[in-house]
Amino acid sequence: MSESGLALVDRMLEGDRLALARLITLVENRSPLVPEVMRRIHPRTGRAYALGVTGPPGSGKSTLVDKLIALLRREGASVGIVAVDPTSPFTGGAVLGDRIRMQAHALDPGVFIRSMATRGSLGGLARATREVLKLLDAFGMDWVLVETVGVGQTELDIIKLADTTVVVLVPESGDAIQTMKAGLLEVADIFCVNKADRDGAQHLVAELRFMVHLHREGRHAAQQPGWEIPVLTTRAVEGAGLDELFGEIRRHRELLETSGTLEARRQARRRRELYELIVQELRREVEGQLEADGALAGYLEQVLSGALDPYSAVAEILAKGIWPRPAP
Amino acid sequence: MSESGLALVDRMLEGDRLALARLITLVENRSPLVPEVMRRIHPRTGRAYALGVTGPPGSGKSTLVDKLIALLRREGASVGIVAVDPTSPFTGGAVLGDRIRMQAHALDPGVFIRSMATRGSLGGLARATREVLKLLDAFGMDWVLVETVGVGQTELDIIKLADTTVVVLVPESGDAIQTMKAGLLEVADIFCVNKADRDGAQHLVAELRFMVHLHREGRHAAQQPGWEIPVLTTRAVEGAGLDELFGEIRRHRELLETSGTLEARRQARRRRELYELIVQELRREVEGQLEADGALAGYLEQVLSGALDPYSAVAEILAKGIWPRPAP
Repeated sequence: MSESGLALVDRMLEGDRLALARLITLVENRSPLVPEVMRRIHPRTGRAYALGVTGPPGSGKSTLVDKLIALLRREGASVGIVAVDPTSPFTGGAVLGDRIRMQAHALDPGVFIRSMATRGSLGGLARATREVLKLLDAFGMDWVLVETVGVGQTELDIIKLADTTVVVLVPESGDAIQTMKAGLLEVADIFCVNKADRDGAQHLVAELRFMVHLHREGRHAAQQPGWEIPVLTTRAVEGAGLDELFGEIRRHRELLETSGTLEARRQARRRRELYELIVQELRREVEGQLEADGALAGYLEQVLSGALDPYSAVAEILAKGIWPRPAP
Repeated sequence: MSESGLALVDRMLEGDRLALARLITLVENRSPLVPEVMRRIHPRTGRAYALGVTGPPGSGKSTLVDKLIALLRREGASVGIVAVDPTSPFTGGAVLGDRIRMQAHALDPGVFIRSMATRGSLGGLARATREVLKLLDAFGMDWVLVETVGVGQTELDIIKLADTTVVVLVPESGDAIQTMKAGLLEVADIFCVNKADRDGAQHLVAELRFMVHLHREGRHAAQQPGWEIPVLTTRAVEGAGLDELFGEIRRHRELLETSGTLEARRQARRRRELYELIVQELRREVEGQLEADGALAGYLEQVLSGALDPYSAVAEILAKGIWPRPAP
């Protein structure tokens, strides 16, 4: 690791916001320094509480996050926010508006906001988000918030980085069955029906409560004994229902902390992280092997010409132990 | 492979549409029969020409595809279509409407349409789409069309399965710079500005032409000597501009075929496929190793407790040759 990279970590740990911003940029650019940065900050991580807020576009997530930041600041807690929008190239306008709104907190030294919208690999986006959350944690933020647009698998993977997850819905975003199909029931600790004065809001609340009740024996519920997913209503723009929402977030946190579920969730995340890092290294190695003049080259040639189908090639490569090769 | 799986492939190759549909379902469900199915159909693949159509939501892609199907049928060509929409849980209405519209072709024996909208792994979605395109190819379709919503990396990966790619835009979908940021310039062989009677259409056309011109020395352009990406206008609903679009698609196909670029593109795809299949197998193996009481268990334990950071763990595991282990 270069001297400047080392210095950056030291400065960040001493509270330098510019150093933090530059480290986040290193993560986004997949700098080769990242593993060493992560190793160095590791002892300083694990303190922050991670809150996830997700929901379909237009559900008012950013306004809600905005108000939650204000509530947390009133309590004296520092807050780091990662807003992830992988679909952004074609929804740039709305996201930009959201970010500008959040800039109300931009001058507050207890708040650090980073928005990540990239056309890079989505798998890479989940990894980068995880690393940015760790940086914010090591920087000393009491809470780290991750906001995603909950529509795809990657976004769900990202939201699983949170300790407590709020799923925000509006009547327009579809009925409860669509919510379930989208996998949101599996990640929700709290449902929040926003813009609750609109037509259909009460109907959606009733549907969600029924759905939560039906699935109270399900996998996600079973992992949280003593917690039945609450369904709340808010009007974030007017500030209505925010205190109740924040109250439920704190109640969920307390339950996780006292029941040992928090540690179990974090262990599951560490396990997934180790697995993904190993796979990532192996990917790199396979890529290198295919380029090199090695054992794989003959198979590659046959596959390229179409003489051999790739499924047979892989079966032979692995069955014959041609690769992976033993380490020297 | 079970007798019935074998029989399904044979029946599909004899032209049984129901067998084709059931094989596609096997692919979608990640059946363990898939590798054997793919091996068996391999000799019958490589004939179909793959056309990709992508663009942001609301650009009128499906209507355009609908009209292209009609043009291809008029020439006597058979057509298989895969419509992929990974974002669908919250845009279900529109997609459903599109699918119903395409059902105009549903009774035509020369047309086979399959829509894939899944909340499953997006990486898995790209793999499944590739396999479904192969099934349609082996079934004997002259053309295979793949339609995606071009907003994320996975969608771009899917569109790279095509030989010729049409990128459909409308003035509302943003300016040319957003198009470029979204990675669409890297995949476009033809730009099509649809709903061309709307405000801003001519402005978008001019911008796109300028952008294409600026990047005529770029990587994508350099891979296609003799081809400057055309920017066309259509009004798909009225059928205007469709003949010109189809003419450019055929002209691009002829250029690829006569210049050897088609074979080069297909070889690049086979290379990527081999790489991905190897990585997929290794993922499975890593997952198994982490579960087993093996060399990785000690590291996993340290990572779970937080005593060791996962980056250091992976570095040690790979550096010490603890895993991958030599084959017996």
